[in-house]
Amino acid sequence: MSDLGATLWFTGLSGAGKSTIAQIVESELRERGYKVEVLDGDVVRTNLSKGLGFSKEDRDTNIRRIAFVADLLSRNGVVAITAAISPYREIRDEARALMGARFIEIHVKASVEECARRDVKGLYEKAMRGEIKEFTGVSDPYEEPLNPELVLDTEAESPEESAAKVLAVLDSRVKIAA
Amino acid sequence: MSDLGATLWFTGLSGAGKSTIAQIVESELRERGYKVEVLDGDVVRTNLSKGLGFSKEDRDTNIRRIAFVADLLSRNGVVAITAAISPYREIRDEARALMGARFIEIHVKASVEECARRDVKGLYEKAMRGEIKEFTGVSDPYEEPLNPELVLDTEAESPEESAAKVLAVLDSRVKIAA
Repeated sequence: MSDLGATLWFTGLSGAGKSTIAQIVESELRERGYKVEVLDGDVVRTNLSKGLGFSKEDRDTNIRRIAFVADLLSRNGVVAITAAISPYREIRDEARALMGARFIEIHVKASVEECARRDVKGLYEKAMRGEIKEFTGVSDPYEEPLNPELVLDTEAESPEESAAKVLAVLDSRVKIAA
Repeated sequence: MSDLGATLWFTGLSGAGKSTIAQIVESELRERGYKVEVLDGDVVRTNLSKGLGFSKEDRDTNIRRIAFVADLLSRNGVVAITAAISPYREIRDEARALMGARFIEIHVKASVEECARRDVKGLYEKAMRGEIKEFTGVSDPYEEPLNPELVLDTEAESPEESAAKVLAVLDSRVKIAA
């Protein structure tokens, strides 16, 4: 049990594994007595950003709202887990500036080819046929983090292995604070 | 110090005293070691609802977003204080349904005439001249709560007296839970 709030900011392509890893981390943290909230892309688009599209401006607004809420939660002792693509470096850096040491950026990394091969939601096929405009990695940019706290190579490691790395980063933070 | 989250949902006309009382309550609660966040109308319109106007639909969306965030906070042990006009009963009742016993509805009550006389932000004068459309209490409806947990008559009592009543309600909740 820890009262040390943090934001685990997962970023990466659709299908890279953000939500899967976030769910494992969430359940592990709950078991350990942490307060946890997952703000994934779908939850947020429904509750905070209905009406926004996928233009750069709308994506930025969406990500800023996620950061606003993650900040409110993490400064009150909650571990906020965000799992939106958040493709633009500048807006992620804004979130980092807002939250300071509470912000833990986690690059969930897999190539576009691998994500398209997995194609969990069938979105890459549609995007490649041109049926979805502004699809990150296909017809819209993804700017990789330059100095993330953690990189998870989901082509080489299992979701459980990735989640263990995230938990290790959180644990080391708690130890430093103790 | 209490870890019992709650949402103090202030509702009432512009100028009735919501923000003033909310600020006193916030500072008292902080002194007592509570975790507190104030979501007032302006903060939320900047960070969650930029682009929304004051039609019924946009107001409802704005209030639903406030409720979503207040729920996230209060279920994690924070006292969330909301101080938006929130004129429609149906949407406040949605918020109540979402948060259950954590939801404490506080009607900050003053007549339109009194609020217009105070006219802290000069808005009533503009609204009465027709320069602001859809102004609650003048050209837009305000639906009073039917069964609020608390009514604060700000024509009869000082902000400090009102704040003391709010704190008493919170205290009694903590005692019941203990």
